[in-house]
Amino acid sequence: MKKLFVLVSVVCIAAASLPEARAANEEAEIRKMLDGWNKAFQAKDLDKIMSFYVKGNDLIAYDVIPPLDVVGSDANRKNYETFLAAYDGTITSEFRDLRIIASSRIAFVHSLERVSGTLKGGQKSELWVRATSGLRKINGKWLIVHDHISVPADFDTGKAVLDSKPGH
Amino acid sequence: MKKLFVLVSVVCIAAASLPEARAANEEAEIRKMLDGWNKAFQAKDLDKIMSFYVKGNDLIAYDVIPPLDVVGSDANRKNYETFLAAYDGTITSEFRDLRIIASSRIAFVHSLERVSGTLKGGQKSELWVRATSGLRKINGKWLIVHDHISVPADFDTGKAVLDSKPGH
Repeated sequence: MKKLFVLVSVVCIAAASLPEARAANEEAEIRKMLDGWNKAFQAKDLDKIMSFYVKGNDLIAYDVIPPLDVVGSDANRKNYETFLAAYDGTITSEFRDLRIIASSRIAFVHSLERVSGTLKGGQKSELWVRATSGLRKINGKWLIVHDHISVPADFDTGKAVLDSKPGH
Repeated sequence: MKKLFVLVSVVCIAAASLPEARAANEEAEIRKMLDGWNKAFQAKDLDKIMSFYVKGNDLIAYDVIPPLDVVGSDANRKNYETFLAAYDGTITSEFRDLRIIASSRIAFVHSLERVSGTLKGGQKSELWVRATSGLRKINGKWLIVHDHISVPADFDTGKAVLDSKPGH
């Protein structure tokens, strides 16, 4: 009986510590997903962009442009479309100070993101935004269920701060 | 041997499903934490507010006011101080559409947050912000390691959208 207890304990401790051991793997999977998102974003490939998001109303986004909140994948696609339509041709974007915090089922990631391109009017634009995403692993695949993209606001002038840069 | 296998399996399945079973408990703990934060925020009690955050440089915040990113709990406290100083007396704040997604160690939460009060100049203010937080359970206590607070930006006018309301 003691032997059995030890066996059960060892097997169960191994099982329980799996999530910890797998964290590095999950991180690598998420990093790959974000790379995929970034390629799709730069190519302005809306179908591909949306493939990284959960479908339906489980997706709730707070976007850099209005409205206050975007509920559902259809509405989120529309917001992406509006944002991307401001740019002429492709976009360059990169993550800075990316942090991934993952368990085996739930994760969140955040980074500063530099978005560069030429606006429809011909003006060159370089914009730093703050990007946070909440992820769930659904049927073995990491999907974004929450996005929060923004720039800071200057309450004295009422202006969106569109020219700030990482300070460190 | 077959019996042993069944026993080990049953015990391990029970152990592996513990995180799922505990999710509701974790959610309740996090909700309590957020209530505590909200009370402290309304009372403008900086020490109490900061007790819900991890100490040191593990805390990275993207605040509603500049700079682009706030690294470390000291810098975050300073940003809170600046924001709270704009208000005369206490603040009223409430969460709307709060969603908590938690494993046993990692969680993220997001909501729309209504912040009301009287500004130093005497003007009444009601502001809706979007609030996302990333949490870790450290030594048995849920702590915020990432905050992202914002309002949308209108790129046509360059203005921060300070008067938007939930549309649903």
